[in-house]
Amino acid sequence: MYESGVERPSSLWVSQQKMKNQITNALSNFFFEYETPRQVLVRNRRVGVVCRLIQLLVLAYIIGWVFIYEKGYQSTDTAVSSVFTKMKGVGYTKVDGRESVWDVADYVFPPQGDSSFVVMTNYIITEGQMMKTCPELPGKHNCSSHADCEGGKLKRTGHGQMTGMCVNETHTCEVLAWCPIEDDRKIPDPPLLMSAENYTLFIKNSITFPLFGVTRSNLVESVDAKYISQCLYDPKDSPLCPIFRLGDIVNLSGFNFSTIAREGGAIGIVVDWTCNLDLDVKKCKPKYNFHGLYGNPNETDKARASVGYNFRYAKHYMEDSKEKRTLLKVFGIRIDIIVQSLVIIPKCTTDSSVCGIATVVCDLVLLYLLPKREFYKNMKFKYTETHEESFILNTRCFPQQELN
Amino acid sequence: MYESGVERPSSLWVSQQKMKNQITNALSNFFFEYETPRQVLVRNRRVGVVCRLIQLLVLAYIIGWVFIYEKGYQSTDTAVSSVFTKMKGVGYTKVDGRESVWDVADYVFPPQGDSSFVVMTNYIITEGQMMKTCPELPGKHNCSSHADCEGGKLKRTGHGQMTGMCVNETHTCEVLAWCPIEDDRKIPDPPLLMSAENYTLFIKNSITFPLFGVTRSNLVESVDAKYISQCLYDPKDSPLCPIFRLGDIVNLSGFNFSTIAREGGAIGIVVDWTCNLDLDVKKCKPKYNFHGLYGNPNETDKARASVGYNFRYAKHYMEDSKEKRTLLKVFGIRIDIIVQSLVIIPKCTTDSSVCGIATVVCDLVLLYLLPKREFYKNMKFKYTETHEESFILNTRCFPQQELN
Amino acid sequence: MYESGVERPSSLWVSQQKMKNQITNALSNFFFEYETPRQVLVRNRRVGVVCRLIQLLVLAYIIGWVFIYEKGYQSTDTAVSSVFTKMKGVGYTKVDGRESVWDVADYVFPPQGDSSFVVMTNYIITEGQMMKTCPELPGKHNCSSHADCEGGKLKRTGHGQMTGMCVNETHTCEVLAWCPIEDDRKIPDPPLLMSAENYTLFIKNSITFPLFGVTRSNLVESVDAKYISQCLYDPKDSPLCPIFRLGDIVNLSGFNFSTIAREGGAIGIVVDWTCNLDLDVKKCKPKYNFHGLYGNPNETDKARASVGYNFRYAKHYMEDSKEKRTLLKVFGIRIDIIVQSLVIIPKCTTDSSVCGIATVVCDLVLLYLLPKREFYKNMKFKYTETHEESFILNTRCFPQQELN
Repeated sequence: MYESGVERPSSLWVSQQKMKNQITNALSNFFFEYETPRQVLVRNRRVGVVCRLIQLLVLAYIIGWVFIYEKGYQSTDTAVSSVFTKMKGVGYTKVDGRESVWDVADYVFPPQGDSSFVVMTNYIITEGQMMKTCPELPGKHNCSSHADCEGGKLKRTGHGQMTGMCVNETHTCEVLAWCPIEDDRKIPDPPLLMSAENYTLFIKNSITFPLFGVTRSNLVESVDAKYISQCLYDPKDSPLCPIFRLGDIVNLSGFNFSTIAREGGAIGIVVDWTCNLDLDVKKCKPKYNFHGLYGNPNETDKARASVGYNFRYAKHYMEDSKEKRTLLKVFGIRIDIIVQSLVIIPKCTTDSSVCGIATVVCDLVLLYLLPKREFYKNMKFKYTETHEESFILNTRCFPQQELN
Repeated sequence: MYESGVERPSSLWVSQQKMKNQITNALSNFFFEYETPRQVLVRNRRVGVVCRLIQLLVLAYIIGWVFIYEKGYQSTDTAVSSVFTKMKGVGYTKVDGRESVWDVADYVFPPQGDSSFVVMTNYIITEGQMMKTCPELPGKHNCSSHADCEGGKLKRTGHGQMTGMCVNETHTCEVLAWCPIEDDRKIPDPPLLMSAENYTLFIKNSITFPLFGVTRSNLVESVDAKYISQCLYDPKDSPLCPIFRLGDIVNLSGFNFSTIAREGGAIGIVVDWTCNLDLDVKKCKPKYNFHGLYGNPNETDKARASVGYNFRYAKHYMEDSKEKRTLLKVFGIRIDIIVQSLVIIPKCTTDSSVCGIATVVCDLVLLYLLPKREFYKNMKFKYTETHEESFILNTRCFPQQELN
Repeated sequence: MYESGVERPSSLWVSQQKMKNQITNALSNFFFEYETPRQVLVRNRRVGVVCRLIQLLVLAYIIGWVFIYEKGYQSTDTAVSSVFTKMKGVGYTKVDGRESVWDVADYVFPPQGDSSFVVMTNYIITEGQMMKTCPELPGKHNCSSHADCEGGKLKRTGHGQMTGMCVNETHTCEVLAWCPIEDDRKIPDPPLLMSAENYTLFIKNSITFPLFGVTRSNLVESVDAKYISQCLYDPKDSPLCPIFRLGDIVNLSGFNFSTIAREGGAIGIVVDWTCNLDLDVKKCKPKYNFHGLYGNPNETDKARASVGYNFRYAKHYMEDSKEKRTLLKVFGIRIDIIVQSLVIIPKCTTDSSVCGIATVVCDLVLLYLLPKREFYKNMKFKYTETHEESFILNTRCFPQQELN
């Protein structure tokens, strides 16, 4: 194969050898060499003293401030925060000629003023439920014969234990359950408690930054008892008033009240504490932001999975020595109050930038301020090519221009 | 104007021209020049090998530890934490000759052992409320004629829907509401459940750091069943006992029990997990801190907006086929248990400091340990002025002094 | 003492003096000297322009991106997250011949779909409790004579106020309490609501990263109404289905269902949002992890302090104008849904590494690409010893090998 090319393998061999040599050299050089920057040792008292002093300050700063005061490892502080909420307002319903008034003990779940709670705006009530047998609702649990209703079985989406009977009138299985079965096929429209729009929410939020020993409340200095008794939150006019109209909250989150009131939804109120603790602590004030969480009409939620916000709630009672209950399917606005805190403290990165200050300053003194600066420049810099008359720039990360 | 000074404008022009030139030069130099440190290339096998080995170790550390094990981008771990609380103790009240005993199912809201809950210490009870019409409480909703009470309207701070009648006896509007209206104008003093001081709170807290695979519980190794059955938290003597007397919690937060019990308040208990996972995981133990959140007597809260902590809670029942309810205005101590975690792991900053180690060590070897060190010093350093006999200092961020 | 050694103190004195001198020199040198790296000033237009351009880009990046867009001080974003839960399923019990069906309004605490809730799996029921006097349970509160029962005293672990009587039949103190006293000495085994294994939990979680303007829901694009109506979470086959079988949750946390159902326990479900926002936001999907929190059978919890999870819950009612209550000691599975978020954004560390890029690139151009590279090498590097033919390596943190 190599008949006509005697030298070829040979030249190939040579170049291979050469390359091999080069690689060997490169490797041996790589392992046996070491380069280090050349230094100019300046024996000048002024420059030396300035430099040492700056280094000392930096050192003191690092040890004293960063490690002792700030404990070094932590630049942001986890805040201890607590939220207390209180709704006010009364709702009125007239269903089937029966008038009812709903106060805070009836429409807020849970009652104790949690940071996350639900305000009822609509409901389906099923009164006088008792433990007995009755047919399931027509619709999901249809049957044509007793064989379709396996006795003793519990269906996950059913309401009770099947007795094995198929009821003729409804064509559904008979179950042992809280009877009558709740009929939630039709959600009241318009929502029964549209008056919820005028309820107000009072938020009390206290926040502590333990590391900085700072405690703040959303009832800041300007928010006193007199102001609270008459104010109402408005993003522009009263951004610090801690009393919010439910209708405003809904609108600020991008919802339409009558839509959200019908099927329910969730809203996040973010209390944002972005505080620069270098300034007066009184300037550390909260900001309120409103986010629609579920049932956002901007999402095409209708087409998607789960709409609205609802849960079931039962009130048990005894009548004629029998346990009964009133079942409420509650549609409501769930409000989550989320406290966000960010403490801004001017913290230099320890490792490199701070240490570099001394060098930068001393070089500036050496090269631009001392009378012998030209001499030092020549010591420090070795020029490669001369084009035009020269002056020297000390360019670091942020170019510093200097004319002399 | 310039008669007597012919040369002046000329000299001004000259200096302007000079300055212009200088600026042009400076700019062109700035853009066309580049400086780089001069390096000494040391061809010494010992130094070279040492240097490469250290660099290799650093590289292995960075790649292996920082990027693979710690996933590089994360230095602190979000902990998964869960808190379970359980109150114990019995309260006793005697109001209008009627004796009552209050147990945990009656005085803790919510009942299920949440990390945030309220312990009732005082209450205003309104029994047998029914949906009917009755006049509002004297005070806020006064009226002089029927015209003051617009029929069908709901007042935000009222208790129900106005019927349009002004009741002569009380001079207040008549409302459709849960009647009789709760009279909360006088808060029982002393608080009805002063015995709450002796209730105990048991805290069970489990914390998991998923990234480190560490799970800890506040029932640490030394806290066994026998110890729990008899211990009581004390900041000095038993700082790990998870059973707290309510009176102690209140005192440690800086409150006075009888004050806070009367109108309510909020207390944060911080369970602080600051763990150095380099040490034995058994040394990772919780610390309990107590913070007064609302109603702090140190604040001049009286003068300020909202005092105390209370909420309304209703127990519904049926009597003679009519729905009635018992309304409780609950004054209590809200306790928020907040888990804070901080995992300290000795993590070098990757970018600069770690990489610099190789250089520092090699320079030390080169300049202070090798027999030819004087030669290398002369290569590395260029002396500017000689004052006295010299030895060389290698000063980095933290001045390292070396006598030779 | 020093007779035979005249020179000794002298030589000691000399060496002491010498050392003293050396220290003085060292100190004065330390304070009056200053070294700075020697620089090569390259007057080459190509290299200069390249270098300045790169520096400009870096500067623009730092100012524009890091400080304006990311606000510089923040690299991770606190997410605003909200969780809504909904259980489905029916339980059935037959105790003493009485059949009961338990639906979601009866077995979930609290009812409103919180992120932390308890599913009842076992219970001890005490019906018809009234406020009267009765003896304590035999066991803890034994007495032999009336003297052992101090009248009017409340025992922390007791159930009421002692009347001062010791009851002969039970040898326990008589108390004013909700009578009859709950007998919780025997926990039903097997648990009464083993059917809880087939309950399902639906989790709806919405998360917003306000800084990035990104909102995601755990009902991601592929999870539509049709998919939800039929899917069930499986770590491998349907990792995005938001419907979980309670039995699966328990198994995935490392528990055995019948064990945990008997005495209760706590499980954490972590919804993990680790999102790289550089990629399409649709790729930002949740992962579900399950952690056993309390009652973990892997812990030797039996030997340790507190086992299981239970709380007491009372349903009050009126019978014959007397207030009565049904007390439930609920054993259940507490589920905590914890949302974890981590946004990965490719952020260069500002201070040193980014700034270094310009230098590295320019050195590469200077030493390896320019025709005069050999000349520049000689300027930049001063060789100490020559061994073999040379080429130069520019080794920084990550050794970059280059053959020429």
